[in-house]
Amino acid sequence: MTSTPRIVEVRRNILKRNDEIARALRERFRSAGVFVVSLVSSPGSGKTAFLEKTLTLLRQDHRPAALVGDLATDNDAVRLARSQAPVRQITTGTLCHLEAAMVEEALAEWNLKELDYLFIENVGNLVCPSSWDLGEDLRVVLLSVTEGEDKPLKYPTIFNTSDVVLITKTDLADATGFDRQAALANIERVRPGMQVLEVSTRTGQGFESWQSFLTEQKKRRATPGPL
Amino acid sequence: MTSTPRIVEVRRNILKRNDEIARALRERFRSAGVFVVSLVSSPGSGKTAFLEKTLTLLRQDHRPAALVGDLATDNDAVRLARSQAPVRQITTGTLCHLEAAMVEEALAEWNLKELDYLFIENVGNLVCPSSWDLGEDLRVVLLSVTEGEDKPLKYPTIFNTSDVVLITKTDLADATGFDRQAALANIERVRPGMQVLEVSTRTGQGFESWQSFLTEQKKRRATPGPL
Repeated sequence: MTSTPRIVEVRRNILKRNDEIARALRERFRSAGVFVVSLVSSPGSGKTAFLEKTLTLLRQDHRPAALVGDLATDNDAVRLARSQAPVRQITTGTLCHLEAAMVEEALAEWNLKELDYLFIENVGNLVCPSSWDLGEDLRVVLLSVTEGEDKPLKYPTIFNTSDVVLITKTDLADATGFDRQAALANIERVRPGMQVLEVSTRTGQGFESWQSFLTEQKKRRATPGPL
Repeated sequence: MTSTPRIVEVRRNILKRNDEIARALRERFRSAGVFVVSLVSSPGSGKTAFLEKTLTLLRQDHRPAALVGDLATDNDAVRLARSQAPVRQITTGTLCHLEAAMVEEALAEWNLKELDYLFIENVGNLVCPSSWDLGEDLRVVLLSVTEGEDKPLKYPTIFNTSDVVLITKTDLADATGFDRQAALANIERVRPGMQVLEVSTRTGQGFESWQSFLTEQKKRRATPGPL
């Protein structure tokens, strides 16, 4: 493994370039008044179903849109488009995360001023997306009750680089024997004070709090002064 | 992204070195008579629970052991050690997959001739482990019924580079509304003819077939001639 230092250096340059693009994106998002939320999680934690419902609900009073990253297929874009919100698929090939340049390219034809919320669904992966800033205002990490309570301890970086934890599929908590207290304690160990929301896309439980949370975060960002 | 060709080249060299180590490992495994099975899947698909039960069952008549990869924590090794089989943890830091050199190092103090089966539990990830040969005889990809039927289409490479699909948590199939036919059709689309086993670690369903399958594969490998 003698070539490791070289790959680290190359990686550092790529990440630096990504940060520059992300910073430019963040400025564009702020000046257009669009609030940007990215979603990260393991495959199968319910990102797409959750996002479809979120888009459908938000569309009643706001103008949401979504970008969705995947290695292959545009299945998720097709599912999200059922919400009637504008949706674009980013196909990453063998790459296990989205990069700021991909987001920039996917947005090329959109007028950001016509949007209130932009959601970016990352590739399902609890490792790779951690170090890639996409210019988002809020990074949400999803943890489904079916995955086990130990995930925050096993994938600390993705929890550390996220702003909120969203516990999903709460309707399955009993069937899976989910230990809620253990999960909360593990999140607290990895990132003390981290905010946790709990939802079930199937029953709708928790979506009211999620919507209030989003609205409040958007307002707070629009207010000048320290967060 | 002008540095992409350079990173591709560095990556190619690292992969080539990995393949050489993997080949040497494979020869060592064969000459020692140990049958090596690696497990890949998303985080939370039930690899560790499945492996703990497998080790416990196999120990009645065989000599199994396990290596387990994780970014952080030795939680999984602690869980697996309850089976009384020899277990070693490999901590990968920020790396989203195991490499052959890590396996080689972890095995340094073990006498392979004292083992019949060696299991290697990879980091929970449906992307990164695809290209890294670990010298295993059999790569098993786990797909839990809680993850959704679309995963083979969305992560085709990991399914293509695996030998068997193991559908896990079948006891939750009804609660999650798992569409078994759709899952099987998607696996068939990605890799026609791929063998599929179905298990529930909780109820024990499917473990008899899994054990027979393992024994048969081990025997088949020991027989000279084409597989």
